[in-house]
Amino acid sequence: MSIVLHDLAGADPDLRFSPYCWRTRFALAHKGLPVETLPWRFSDREAIAFSGQGKVPVIRDDGKVVFDSWTIAEHLEEQYPAPTLFGGATGRAHALFVNSWADAVLVGGIARFIVRDLMDIIDPADHAYFRSSREARFGQSLEAVQAGREDRLTAFRDLLLPIRLVLRRQRWLGGASPSYADHIVAGTLMWPRCASRFELLEGNDPVSEWQGRVLDLYGGIGRSAKRA
Amino acid sequence: MSIVLHDLAGADPDLRFSPYCWRTRFALAHKGLPVETLPWRFSDREAIAFSGQGKVPVIRDDGKVVFDSWTIAEHLEEQYPAPTLFGGATGRAHALFVNSWADAVLVGGIARFIVRDLMDIIDPADHAYFRSSREARFGQSLEAVQAGREDRLTAFRDLLLPIRLVLRRQRWLGGASPSYADHIVAGTLMWPRCASRFELLEGNDPVSEWQGRVLDLYGGIGRSAKRA
Repeated sequence: MSIVLHDLAGADPDLRFSPYCWRTRFALAHKGLPVETLPWRFSDREAIAFSGQGKVPVIRDDGKVVFDSWTIAEHLEEQYPAPTLFGGATGRAHALFVNSWADAVLVGGIARFIVRDLMDIIDPADHAYFRSSREARFGQSLEAVQAGREDRLTAFRDLLLPIRLVLRRQRWLGGASPSYADHIVAGTLMWPRCASRFELLEGNDPVSEWQGRVLDLYGGIGRSAKRA
Repeated sequence: MSIVLHDLAGADPDLRFSPYCWRTRFALAHKGLPVETLPWRFSDREAIAFSGQGKVPVIRDDGKVVFDSWTIAEHLEEQYPAPTLFGGATGRAHALFVNSWADAVLVGGIARFIVRDLMDIIDPADHAYFRSSREARFGQSLEAVQAGREDRLTAFRDLLLPIRLVLRRQRWLGGASPSYADHIVAGTLMWPRCASRFELLEGNDPVSEWQGRVLDLYGGIGRSAKRA
């Protein structure tokens, strides 16, 4: 039986852009696990009420319900050990730093470039909730958050220096082959790639080149994903 | 035969404060390897000329010369596999992200708080070189770089959020036990601890609490290290 993934979707049900759901999508593909993705919108509280909380990704795996992308990755590694996502307990512990960096630095950094664009792709039923919750978080209108983004590009790109330093020494964040660390960062970058037409990275950035390699993994599920 | 480590020292030869040498000190202690540390100053070019480059840490291990803290850690893991620093190839690959983050974010961030203080502890013979090389790097006088540091403390502490997020889920950056990831970050924090009296962290910060645990490892080599 396929694993079921409740996956954030836009007004177009084929448009999937959650940075956390994409981490899970890549992890499932890495394991070679078939998945049935169900489009979910912010207003679909009822659809995931069985999980006891209100955010995606949520998976149902043989009757077991798991939510939170990190917890899902740990679940998959335990239930389906090969091919490994973490390469052992220390690899998993160190991947948590990458996950925490992505959450603390990357998600917040990217949001300031695309949060207004998201209004153009999410379901109309989500508009009021999305605007009010995000404007409360930023303390500004979505338009004000995103304003002047061209002038902030260089500072954003500088935040990616740790990735560039890693890629000087190895082909993947996972070393000689991709690991969940690659899924974390590349999954996060699927968010601006799919939800906005604004280009965050320069084509000749080693981060772009690495991202291209991830997009081609697993039959190109990243490359072929629908974009805004 | 002990491993020999050329270790940056102040005018006081017992004052050791290099963020990179401390990563190596912790790694050696983790492996239980005896080490003879030789005080080195920036002006001692000749003393490490045998390594073919000009920076410490440099180790001599049974006739083999290794420099660069990351390369030294890889060397130690290969030559003395247990207890492990990385927990395997993926753990090592993921630790490189931590190392890169520490180099890109932490070292540069800390420098702006203590670089003038370093003039008070380094050997007088190093004064001219240190000032001119660092002022060229920052494009400012050392005094100007360090000015207003109290006002920048909150922004610096915010940079440590990824560490705090990790420590919510596990006791060490290495997971259930310390790994080289702990040595990287704690080694970097030995730099302000030993070289300056300026307090970067608040005592109730989870990062401080974790740092305290690292200081007590390996017979307390961190805790008992001489401070400015």
